[in-house]
Amino acid sequence: MDRRSILKKSLTATAAAGAATLSAPAISQGRVEWRMVTTWPKNFPGLGVGAQRLADRITTMSGGRLTVKVYSAGELVPPLQALDAVIGGTAEMSHGAAYYWQNKNAGLSFFTGIPYGMTSRELAAWVRYLGGQQIWDEIYDQFGVQGFLSGDTGTQAGGWFRKELKGLDDIKGLRFRTPGMGGQVWAKLGASVTNLAAGQIFQALQTGTLDAAEFVGPFNDLALGFYQVCKDYYFPSFIEPGLATELVVNKSKFAALPKDLQEIVRVASQAEYDQVASDFYANDPRALETLVAKHGVRVRQFPEPILEAGAKAASEVLAGVRNSDNALAKKTAESFVAALNLLRTRTEGTDTPFLRAREKYFKVK
Amino acid sequence: MDRRSILKKSLTATAAAGAATLSAPAISQGRVEWRMVTTWPKNFPGLGVGAQRLADRITTMSGGRLTVKVYSAGELVPPLQALDAVIGGTAEMSHGAAYYWQNKNAGLSFFTGIPYGMTSRELAAWVRYLGGQQIWDEIYDQFGVQGFLSGDTGTQAGGWFRKELKGLDDIKGLRFRTPGMGGQVWAKLGASVTNLAAGQIFQALQTGTLDAAEFVGPFNDLALGFYQVCKDYYFPSFIEPGLATELVVNKSKFAALPKDLQEIVRVASQAEYDQVASDFYANDPRALETLVAKHGVRVRQFPEPILEAGAKAASEVLAGVRNSDNALAKKTAESFVAALNLLRTRTEGTDTPFLRAREKYFKVK
Repeated sequence: MDRRSILKKSLTATAAAGAATLSAPAISQGRVEWRMVTTWPKNFPGLGVGAQRLADRITTMSGGRLTVKVYSAGELVPPLQALDAVIGGTAEMSHGAAYYWQNKNAGLSFFTGIPYGMTSRELAAWVRYLGGQQIWDEIYDQFGVQGFLSGDTGTQAGGWFRKELKGLDDIKGLRFRTPGMGGQVWAKLGASVTNLAAGQIFQALQTGTLDAAEFVGPFNDLALGFYQVCKDYYFPSFIEPGLATELVVNKSKFAALPKDLQEIVRVASQAEYDQVASDFYANDPRALETLVAKHGVRVRQFPEPILEAGAKAASEVLAGVRNSDNALAKKTAESFVAALNLLRTRTEGTDTPFLRAREKYFKVK
Repeated sequence: MDRRSILKKSLTATAAAGAATLSAPAISQGRVEWRMVTTWPKNFPGLGVGAQRLADRITTMSGGRLTVKVYSAGELVPPLQALDAVIGGTAEMSHGAAYYWQNKNAGLSFFTGIPYGMTSRELAAWVRYLGGQQIWDEIYDQFGVQGFLSGDTGTQAGGWFRKELKGLDDIKGLRFRTPGMGGQVWAKLGASVTNLAAGQIFQALQTGTLDAAEFVGPFNDLALGFYQVCKDYYFPSFIEPGLATELVVNKSKFAALPKDLQEIVRVASQAEYDQVASDFYANDPRALETLVAKHGVRVRQFPEPILEAGAKAASEVLAGVRNSDNALAKKTAESFVAALNLLRTRTEGTDTPFLRAREKYFKVK
């Protein structure tokens, strides 16, 4: 999907949303139809496709007893009202990213990923085995919903820059599109940070309103056409070492489902965590090949002083959450840090040494 | 579970296997009971537990319409006859590792993992998006079965050594327990390679029949008690950068299931790929802490010349498959190499640079 069609569909859908009829879930002969609202444009590579596939898998596994109908961003509600739609009963499920709701609780960012935080493997280990899910449930309990991991992009790209970055001085005043805690990190490095919706980034880069932007990675960024206005593509994203998506369900409606359907929803969402990550790991490098070979994009690594200053800024942003007076956010951060410090001993003692040795010594054609 | 109880249970189970009654699957009121034979001892950390959980999830999601009963190693058939049991109809499913059946086709090793090959993320990307599943299906079609990824240990430990390794000279004549293609790699490095079942390794190390052994990683190795006789524990396993388990189903029986049950089996197996990996990523570092703090184990990295010679040996072993006259094994190897060369551009350009920067610059307590 090219940039224009995403933009167009998104606008059309938003206009239609006000007129949508919000009928009650159809229940007949033990069959239920659930509405899944998403924060993604329809067929958005990796993430929107994943939301649709998750819905289809639930429908298929339940033999149609739980039929899930997907509403892309703006079709039923605007993307950033997806969680509220589930809380309010307009939809039974949402598919998005927990950090979109950090205004409800700062702890939610940790279940998507934070600057210099966990990789997708580490995040799943924390959520499933080291207490993460329990704290996540505690936060969402307040809103009558529950979240499950439903996908991950893997470590993202650092962003598109109109000019080469030679050091920290090049960041001062740089007008950079990057949201959330990552935005706070870049602001500490001196950037003038703004957030724009996906469909607005291209034009802002083209007209010079932005000097730089980061979105996801090659697979999504190719579709948005940023290569037409920026040629310097930096890696890796130290602010998004992984980005996990979530499936959110209305808790009381979920509890009312029979046990087999509950398990189907949980297991389908977990399978998608692997499927979406596989999609990105396979298709990011294919897209990057196209960006380089066909569109003349230059792949660059961030200069070392930026990586180092980024780490310092990330630890300050993290300290801000740990020192806040939000008890659940603090609890989340403490659990996250303890888990990260445990998990990184495996990553740094086993995974990284293997990858380093393979990169250095093992070449086959 | 300690080493003695694994050994005891395994022996008891093997003795009982001959007497097991092989009744036909019970079918009543649309309910089917399927037998899953496994290559793992009962409750074996990570892998045996994963096989049982996969069976339970299928049973729960199907509301009992497809009830899966697990037979651990030796309970119904000996562990290394699990695949033959599915081919022959003694069981409908098996849970094990494809490389156990490399004598049926050398290509099968690639769906478990090969020396200096893919990580768990890369393997799933190859199997799900880059043609791996199709070739796997082609190999197993010959035997009337189909395989699905059902778990992964992540990058393993390199092994337990009775003496410190200072360089390649220390490997000459070293009596080392390590199976499969990894064993071929160590043999090229000069080791005297043997394969022993899990329950025999401890005693062989204790009596001095073995100088070294590798099994899985801290989570499993702690349970087997190797720390009692070896103190030098080397990382990483360059011969097992990931070890994927498989769920194998009898193809015609699977095809006869209704579509919803087929999807339940597929999706449950995929969810387990994530669940098992999460289990290892969370519990390996906890077990390693215990090994070091409580049992005085010394964690060591392989010397650089061993990593380098290991890579050369691994490429020779791989070339052996590519140059063999087994068309399907060659086809598997070619597909694997092409996928690895694509996937490593992402790993080495994005994941590794992030991990390196985090290790160097980001420390929080």
